[in-house]
Amino acid sequence: MDYYGSEVTKLIEQLSSLPGIGGKTAQRLAFHIVSMPEERVQQLADSIVGARKHICYCKVCCTMTDREVCPICSDPKRDRRTIMVVETSRDLGAYEKTGKYEGVYHVLQGAISPLLGIGPGDIRLKELMTRLEGDVDEVIIATNSSLEGETTAMYISRLIKPTGIKVSRIASGVPVGGDLEYIDEVTLLRALEGRTQL
Amino acid sequence: MDYYGSEVTKLIEQLSSLPGIGGKTAQRLAFHIVSMPEERVQQLADSIVGARKHICYCKVCCTMTDREVCPICSDPKRDRRTIMVVETSRDLGAYEKTGKYEGVYHVLQGAISPLLGIGPGDIRLKELMTRLEGDVDEVIIATNSSLEGETTAMYISRLIKPTGIKVSRIASGVPVGGDLEYIDEVTLLRALEGRTQL
Repeated sequence: MDYYGSEVTKLIEQLSSLPGIGGKTAQRLAFHIVSMPEERVQQLADSIVGARKHICYCKVCCTMTDREVCPICSDPKRDRRTIMVVETSRDLGAYEKTGKYEGVYHVLQGAISPLLGIGPGDIRLKELMTRLEGDVDEVIIATNSSLEGETTAMYISRLIKPTGIKVSRIASGVPVGGDLEYIDEVTLLRALEGRTQL
Repeated sequence: MDYYGSEVTKLIEQLSSLPGIGGKTAQRLAFHIVSMPEERVQQLADSIVGARKHICYCKVCCTMTDREVCPICSDPKRDRRTIMVVETSRDLGAYEKTGKYEGVYHVLQGAISPLLGIGPGDIRLKELMTRLEGDVDEVIIATNSSLEGETTAMYISRLIKPTGIKVSRIASGVPVGGDLEYIDEVTLLRALEGRTQL
């Protein structure tokens, strides 16, 4: 299989070990990389090593970042009394892109999954409970609407309710622009249950 | 947009500048990379820089490799009297994967394209003609069956014919497993023209 020479083959192997990158894509990327200007290649390699080296968890919200306290938690304009609980830093990114949420986040770094043996102690729940000892008005649970996400949401809401803090769950229903015909039954039922009066 | 911290954001930007990697994929890759063991990340960065640093064109067939003469051209078992002409090193890789071709290659590093202003002087044609001064029985033209590939094939065959060396073109037709119903008219006509007697 080493018809390109060992360096290129090694790069193709390394790239195809990344998630979602198959053999063909790895090849295309490798040949693109070797045709890039040398300083651009160095920049790419540096940011890979740099990001890994400086990565840590925000000591407030547990998101992945390169500072002790992440840009959101250290932003004085954010409303610290509203905490949105998400599973991953990418979910945080998805809500940040809407540009409309002004509260802060808590990143669980996972979800409870009895099947995979991930219990409440394996996600960043203790850190969330510690934050709730401060001044918090509302916890919005925005875990995925998968089995694991729902289990986690249920677990967290039961944990928080005794503290008297308001707990809410993001709405589940038909996506905007979605065609009813192509939407699964569970989502349709959820949309029906969650109907609001006009 | 810098809600992840600058190092992660920089990595996402770098990754999304690669071909076929959109914003979402770049994010997924970046978060995968920062969760990888540090030595694996270093290996990835090293192979990126290493492949770029050592890349050159094989001085025989012009494929991208990291040696003066590529593994195929330096393999004594290959039949040097048969040369397959392809557009890119990835096309060479595609034929190598079949495991059945025993000749050598010539990589043009492009195709003639009047539209993009790429003329015969911009691809590795001169190098091919120099090789033909040696002992060669057949040149198999395996450029793509796109407009550019066909133009290039036509041009090369006219160039070689006066030398008396046999020139052939890989067959064009219905792909194996292809459903006639979904195949374009041009391919269907090609398949008809190229029919072989049973």
